[in-house]
Amino acid sequence: MRIVDWKDSEGEAYLEALQKRQQATNREIEVKVRDLLEEVKEKGNLAVIEMTAIYDKARLTEETMKVSSVEIEEAVSQVDKAYLKAIRRAQEKISRFHERQRQLSWFENPEPGVTLGQKVTPLDCVGIYVPGGTAAYPSSVLMNAVPAKVAGVERIVMTTPPDQEGKVNPVILAAAYIAGVDEIYKIGGAQAIGAMAFGTATVPKVDKITGPGNQYVATAKKMVYGQVDIDMIAGPSEILVIADEKADPAYIAADLLSQAEHDQLSSAICITTNRLVAEKVLKQLERQLEKLERQAIARKSMENYGGIWVVDSLEKAVSISNRLAPEHLELCVEKPFELLEKIKHAGAIFMGHYSPEPLGDYIAGPNHVLPTEGTARFYSPLSVEDFVKKSSIISYTREAMEKVADDVILMAEKEGLPAHGQAIRIRRR
Amino acid sequence: MRIVDWKDSEGEAYLEALQKRQQATNREIEVKVRDLLEEVKEKGNLAVIEMTAIYDKARLTEETMKVSSVEIEEAVSQVDKAYLKAIRRAQEKISRFHERQRQLSWFENPEPGVTLGQKVTPLDCVGIYVPGGTAAYPSSVLMNAVPAKVAGVERIVMTTPPDQEGKVNPVILAAAYIAGVDEIYKIGGAQAIGAMAFGTATVPKVDKITGPGNQYVATAKKMVYGQVDIDMIAGPSEILVIADEKADPAYIAADLLSQAEHDQLSSAICITTNRLVAEKVLKQLERQLEKLERQAIARKSMENYGGIWVVDSLEKAVSISNRLAPEHLELCVEKPFELLEKIKHAGAIFMGHYSPEPLGDYIAGPNHVLPTEGTARFYSPLSVEDFVKKSSIISYTREAMEKVADDVILMAEKEGLPAHGQAIRIRRR
Repeated sequence: MRIVDWKDSEGEAYLEALQKRQQATNREIEVKVRDLLEEVKEKGNLAVIEMTAIYDKARLTEETMKVSSVEIEEAVSQVDKAYLKAIRRAQEKISRFHERQRQLSWFENPEPGVTLGQKVTPLDCVGIYVPGGTAAYPSSVLMNAVPAKVAGVERIVMTTPPDQEGKVNPVILAAAYIAGVDEIYKIGGAQAIGAMAFGTATVPKVDKITGPGNQYVATAKKMVYGQVDIDMIAGPSEILVIADEKADPAYIAADLLSQAEHDQLSSAICITTNRLVAEKVLKQLERQLEKLERQAIARKSMENYGGIWVVDSLEKAVSISNRLAPEHLELCVEKPFELLEKIKHAGAIFMGHYSPEPLGDYIAGPNHVLPTEGTARFYSPLSVEDFVKKSSIISYTREAMEKVADDVILMAEKEGLPAHGQAIRIRRR
Repeated sequence: MRIVDWKDSEGEAYLEALQKRQQATNREIEVKVRDLLEEVKEKGNLAVIEMTAIYDKARLTEETMKVSSVEIEEAVSQVDKAYLKAIRRAQEKISRFHERQRQLSWFENPEPGVTLGQKVTPLDCVGIYVPGGTAAYPSSVLMNAVPAKVAGVERIVMTTPPDQEGKVNPVILAAAYIAGVDEIYKIGGAQAIGAMAFGTATVPKVDKITGPGNQYVATAKKMVYGQVDIDMIAGPSEILVIADEKADPAYIAADLLSQAEHDQLSSAICITTNRLVAEKVLKQLERQLEKLERQAIARKSMENYGGIWVVDSLEKAVSISNRLAPEHLELCVEKPFELLEKIKHAGAIFMGHYSPEPLGDYIAGPNHVLPTEGTARFYSPLSVEDFVKKSSIISYTREAMEKVADDVILMAEKEGLPAHGQAIRIRRR
């Protein structure tokens, strides 16, 4: 790692490299996933049970595939009480924030005899994928299930791979229970995505699939997209810290490392207007890295995709940030709200010196499912809006229709669609 | 065509056939489009000019690729005055409706020292594809450009193929001018999608591409999805009319044919509680078909994907409608607003006897870009929301952070991400 005086030419090259870091799609995985999905589509439960035996080394039956209420009760009683309370408090705060995102159906009467409107309806059935493996992420269960619950989705389904004994991590079950998930199935990988996209005798066909997963899961989600809706495919984690001369280098280093520890492909960058701050951040990084449990990962990530860049103004820092469109943006500056207006693209924005990014991962309330790899240019955080859809309402009286009839007939005929005009004309008799 | 007494078993088979009617993806087209996109990505304008010479038989240069302001003025002066006025009135009504969809940024202070919020920002740059060919659809220009304009998008780009003289249909240019499109390029097909997705020396790289197109355009949109956002890929048009004993069979037949004339793959279905109405609709269909300009298309569509179904209650009709999730739904019943609550999935809902579907295509105000092929289960009409994105805002004071610190540290450590906890811990010193 070294400190870089930002030059536009150099910067462009870096930004390009950053955005390319996970674009290679693996053809082999694609072929394999396509086969798995086909099999689940054709053979349903049978295929799912077979694949779970192969990939998860767990024996399921149609009866044990679904997590029972006894298993959930057991799980809840097994989880550390303090941890359970923290999860509950997080759930409350996440719910409260997402309640603000609810939209109402509306009607208007723009002209006599005309009623127009927009009807908001929750999705019927949603599927959440939760990865298995050694680390369990109850926060991810909450962040996916709570917005669906707040939206009013009636049937929230979850799938997660079982261990070799056919069990699911109790913390995952407890979080699902707290979040209000209705059904949980012990299925992982591409077969879980297939089961939810096509439905089986046991697993319902869902309308939308959300949640993180490995490359098999991500590929399967892309392939079923269109048949069902999906959330965005998450890339590696990113943080950008904009720091002025008052920012605390130790805080900044800690925040950078909190993203760098995720993954070797994570990107953690500090842009500062102050060279002394830059130098101190560099020193702090070295010092803190040494004590880090996940040092090897964090070091690789910082070396490949990290950076400390010195610029001559906060405006320049913001303009680079807008080029990056980072997943997480920290404004470690004296007056963060004064910079906010200039920020155009970012998944979540953390204001000031005491709003470190991990607050947003767990407990602040806003969703931690955020657009990555520059897609904050056009994507939003996961929200209640992802779990509803709208229908337009159009109601005219005969008199109101008469008033616009000529325009519609003319436009239809000019577009070469005379039967469209005829539907109006026939009502004028 | 015959009248069918609805039975669930028969119905399921029909619904399945309907939903499968355009799922075959063409591998040959995929391979070709992939090559075209690669070439545009690599060679930019050169590739675009070459492809336009081959596919549109038009000679362009870097200078003539962009429609000039003189060309736009000429076009506006060429269009029939009455038509221009109708387009202007449509633009006003579409704008007025879409204004209601604007969302505001919001902030809240849920606890002392905590400020949370959601910032709404328009997309920077949007690209609209407009097909060429014999029929020009200015309504489609309005329906795509107006929501972007209302959303506050600063740069709205349009591409549309030129004719052999290198000209664009004047009505398209006039509609673009009225809708407030900023730049228009004479490029069509997959090469237009590539130019907008990757950018060339002349065409800007956009954040989102919307608009209809042939299979090449649709395939190209799917392929660039993720790099840029896209709207949904539209399938063939659909209408479902729910009619009671008071409904006018002549109106219903006209409305069915207004969709059937679009395309041989269009689907037009009437579900009625009254056998006499069914019989009269059938007779009206025959009578009206004979006078129809686009009779051949409409007849094929009605034969393959049309239907007149008799059911024993409006509830049953609604439940079939919810299974279909139609693009357009007409409630030709005495009290349409009483049925509305039960409608779960539909793109646009037309209420009563004087709200025929073509009103919505042209002038009512709501968008005519609607989810097809059952995707109204999870997709919404094109709207202002498609042209903005959101950022979450998180701001804590030191004291507020202290209050949640234990929970965040605990949750981070339990999830195996200690550096996340460290970012909090370091601020507690």
